[in-house]
Amino acid sequence: MIQQIDHIGIAVTSLAAAIPHYRDALGLGEPTIDEVPTQKVRIAMFNVAGVHIELLEPTSPESPIAKAMEKNGGRGMIHHIAFKSDDVLAQLATAKDAGCALINEVPVPGAHGSQVAFLHPKSTFGVLTEFCQH
Amino acid sequence: MIQQIDHIGIAVTSLAAAIPHYRDALGLGEPTIDEVPTQKVRIAMFNVAGVHIELLEPTSPESPIAKAMEKNGGRGMIHHIAFKSDDVLAQLATAKDAGCALINEVPVPGAHGSQVAFLHPKSTFGVLTEFCQH
Repeated sequence: MIQQIDHIGIAVTSLAAAIPHYRDALGLGEPTIDEVPTQKVRIAMFNVAGVHIELLEPTSPESPIAKAMEKNGGRGMIHHIAFKSDDVLAQLATAKDAGCALINEVPVPGAHGSQVAFLHPKSTFGVLTEFCQH
Repeated sequence: MIQQIDHIGIAVTSLAAAIPHYRDALGLGEPTIDEVPTQKVRIAMFNVAGVHIELLEPTSPESPIAKAMEKNGGRGMIHHIAFKSDDVLAQLATAKDAGCALINEVPVPGAHGSQVAFLHPKSTFGVLTEFCQH
């Protein structure tokens, strides 16, 4: 079952450039910084009353985030929505039964020790959709 | 001050097609339906533990949502992030001082009687950003 929106993933070319916008112009405070080597990204997480803004900076041109920005004219953009679930495997089964295409048939390691899985945006009305479990 | 993420705006070509995905495949329950004539959109709102998924269907080709999808190859996509603020005018002033370009210098009427204002995505690292006050 989906418990809440966990985070909104935003692709950025530079964490150093984007962090001051969220910290100062929006006033969201200091982020925590993490790296997810499997996705080739560095991450800044802002906690906004329990829902997170996740800025994603590619650490390699091979990163899926780098490729997404390349398709977007080299610009950053809102990249995905992540829903926190108490059971990602069951969530994937329900979504598959309802016709969604799964990018991950089983959860893979995400940021901060989470387990995550993505639905393909072609099957979700253009929205890259993540389920995550902490 | 920003109090929470209020909603994530998602452009869709058809509410009738997209609602079952969010209701059944994700299990988010029944949405509320609203129309915002000034933006030429019909809206379905799903409440996910206090943060909303806002599906936006244009009611006219002149709708900003129709134009955004046109630029996106006619496909739906994550369109904007809205932050709930206790004072949208002060929020706009802070953002402007920090270098953000304002689409709305003063708040305009949004869905469900709210007051809303947008920052230009060119000044916010590609993310169309809304402040709203209920």
